[in-house]
Amino acid sequence: MARQSIKVGILGVGVVGGGTYQILAQNTDQVQRLAGVDIEVVALCDIAWDRPRDFAVPEHLKTTDAGAVINGPDTDIIVETIGGTGVARDYVMAAIAAGKSVVTSNKELMAKHGEEILTAAAQQGVDVQFEGSVGGVIPIIRSLKESLAAGRLDEVVGIVNGTTNYILTRMSQEGKEFAEVLAEAQQRGYAEADPTDDIEGIDSANKLAILSAIAFGARVPVAQIYREGISAVSPADLEYARRMDYVIKLLAIGKRDGEQIELRVHPALLSADHPLATVGGVFNAIFVRGPECGEVMLYGRGAGAMPTGTAVAGDVIDCARNIIHGSAGRVPCTCQGQAQVKLMAEVQTRAYLRMRVADRPGVLGTIATVFGEESVSIQSVIQESSQDNIAEIVWIMHKGPEKNLQSALSCIRGLNIVKEICSMIRVVE
Amino acid sequence: MARQSIKVGILGVGVVGGGTYQILAQNTDQVQRLAGVDIEVVALCDIAWDRPRDFAVPEHLKTTDAGAVINGPDTDIIVETIGGTGVARDYVMAAIAAGKSVVTSNKELMAKHGEEILTAAAQQGVDVQFEGSVGGVIPIIRSLKESLAAGRLDEVVGIVNGTTNYILTRMSQEGKEFAEVLAEAQQRGYAEADPTDDIEGIDSANKLAILSAIAFGARVPVAQIYREGISAVSPADLEYARRMDYVIKLLAIGKRDGEQIELRVHPALLSADHPLATVGGVFNAIFVRGPECGEVMLYGRGAGAMPTGTAVAGDVIDCARNIIHGSAGRVPCTCQGQAQVKLMAEVQTRAYLRMRVADRPGVLGTIATVFGEESVSIQSVIQESSQDNIAEIVWIMHKGPEKNLQSALSCIRGLNIVKEICSMIRVVE
Repeated sequence: MARQSIKVGILGVGVVGGGTYQILAQNTDQVQRLAGVDIEVVALCDIAWDRPRDFAVPEHLKTTDAGAVINGPDTDIIVETIGGTGVARDYVMAAIAAGKSVVTSNKELMAKHGEEILTAAAQQGVDVQFEGSVGGVIPIIRSLKESLAAGRLDEVVGIVNGTTNYILTRMSQEGKEFAEVLAEAQQRGYAEADPTDDIEGIDSANKLAILSAIAFGARVPVAQIYREGISAVSPADLEYARRMDYVIKLLAIGKRDGEQIELRVHPALLSADHPLATVGGVFNAIFVRGPECGEVMLYGRGAGAMPTGTAVAGDVIDCARNIIHGSAGRVPCTCQGQAQVKLMAEVQTRAYLRMRVADRPGVLGTIATVFGEESVSIQSVIQESSQDNIAEIVWIMHKGPEKNLQSALSCIRGLNIVKEICSMIRVVE
Repeated sequence: MARQSIKVGILGVGVVGGGTYQILAQNTDQVQRLAGVDIEVVALCDIAWDRPRDFAVPEHLKTTDAGAVINGPDTDIIVETIGGTGVARDYVMAAIAAGKSVVTSNKELMAKHGEEILTAAAQQGVDVQFEGSVGGVIPIIRSLKESLAAGRLDEVVGIVNGTTNYILTRMSQEGKEFAEVLAEAQQRGYAEADPTDDIEGIDSANKLAILSAIAFGARVPVAQIYREGISAVSPADLEYARRMDYVIKLLAIGKRDGEQIELRVHPALLSADHPLATVGGVFNAIFVRGPECGEVMLYGRGAGAMPTGTAVAGDVIDCARNIIHGSAGRVPCTCQGQAQVKLMAEVQTRAYLRMRVADRPGVLGTIATVFGEESVSIQSVIQESSQDNIAEIVWIMHKGPEKNLQSALSCIRGLNIVKEICSMIRVVE
């Protein structure tokens, strides 16, 4: 079918939707050259047009009528950049039902309703693309679904939340407390007024659900992902880590383990020479490993109008190519497999532990004996005296079942010589 | 068109061709699931079947008759993993003429004959894919042509040759001379018996030609790429660099500069906190920058049977998807633009210089005066006394036109107080 142009409606003209619009509107010649057809944004739909924006929105594109954009004859591709799982889900399903291709940057939507959405897309023979949903500009979705598709993937580990990476990077560089850096990040716009989704690892877990579904070919409910946030990480932990040649990062970890998969989001000590260790500030990166591909890492800005807008606009070009070639749906959902998530208690972990104990003879031995009784093997210990007859002990354990560690900790917490278990952070190879 | 299977013939069953075959033959279920159709390797063509291989080749697949593989009715996709521009070019052109889609990992072929090949492919409506030609497994070609396609790219900088990166990494870690590490690399199979293509930057220049054509949308003859190899880099330079928080890497650099583009391959001092600085050993990485995408880096193994085979097999899956959807040629050549390559003399560079001079009063001033007369501005100087009345001076210059630096060096080389200009390595921001 020879088309004059491909017409795009954008639902949700906030940061990402606005960036997508600006890129498509400013780079029309380049986009035309690459897509092989003109791509025209014909509608911008939002409910808050009184909100200030740092770019000009042509009056004739503004609308508040999402239904007209979705169902009208004028649009070929619907971009959903609203976020959340409320109207965003309704609109995406309606667009698919109307035979439109969909591009979304909505990680929560794809993590929680990906199956429903991709099944509907396959039935309608339309594309649903979501490169912008994980890692912003980082081309990880297309790389996993296409470039690396022929080999097996055994591991996908990501720094996929810029807010927490920014906070940990600044805490590490400046020795400041979590709460202080969070407040500064909120002032600078790097953290939301309600930062729960970011700092508790909820955002990272949504992204891990998407990554692991593609990497391992099996969809898993987000609720089955083990999750810990970064609010308990202290400058003391960052400093101990640095002295032992580690960094601390909030990692989203997916690993094959026989027929099961491990899925977890938590702060982790990562060796300073790991490719992810130097990913600082608001940057994101995703590291994958497999027997054929070896180690691959993709790095870039995980958020922001232009970076994420680039990913969304790249998907729009891909959808447009498929429309003009009649090949919509050529890269369908590939995660029809089944996988059982390994219980966290069964996962093999290594722990970094920091505790405050009574500074007197026999204490170290008593605690070490408890670890031994619970089959938790000690790799190294640092004990430093602090004030008021309290000593600080930092332990690094050998790898073992998480449940052994947890029972050891619950015994140790009950010892009267132990004042506080300050930190337990897992060490990742 | 409903097809039973897509049939693949592989021409050249060496390292990459062999890896591609093994991946496609071992992962048939996964490949079928992702491609939406069975993909079957039906012919392996090579002229040296007596050569030992570390995998089993089924007798019924072996052939020496490339023409029959290319023109026979049994193949849909031809994989060219022969290398070079001799028969590889003839075979690729013949396959296109026969209406077959082509996948190649041949950087020299695509760098030198890409235009002829991609023009013929467009006329025939077939795919020519070449993800494996740059950076091995690194999904850079698809990312540039698709994921990052909507924004402008201003810079592409790569470590795209594993042999030289391995040599520089080991020289830096062990303080050994170039020749010694090269000999060891040859023994271990990390460098060819004739290492010229790698160590002189010829291989990197071919890859840069491909990257810059896609990133800047304009094809440039490889011969116009300025090129220096790594054989003159010494352990002393690596040590000075380290002390100043730099590393030395062989970089392939492409940059937009107004209407012109800069293209150069040379060793460079790179700040230790640049994302490319930690890319060690045989790993490759490509860093791109643009006003919309920001900084993006992709990292992985740049060579080897399985990594590069993964990239080639990924392209085979992509071609297969296009064949079953009737969309071959959906991502055509996108570098029809024109670009003028900036003369190296006009490029703005910064130099690191190491020289041995007479150790007596006035010498530093005399040399500094020459720099001043040629408008080369000094950023920092380290002078260390060595033996026999000879001092070693290390200079870092401010940025300026390369031609000024070259005329200053030619004057300085003529001064009788200057015993030797040991090194001139450019510093990259």
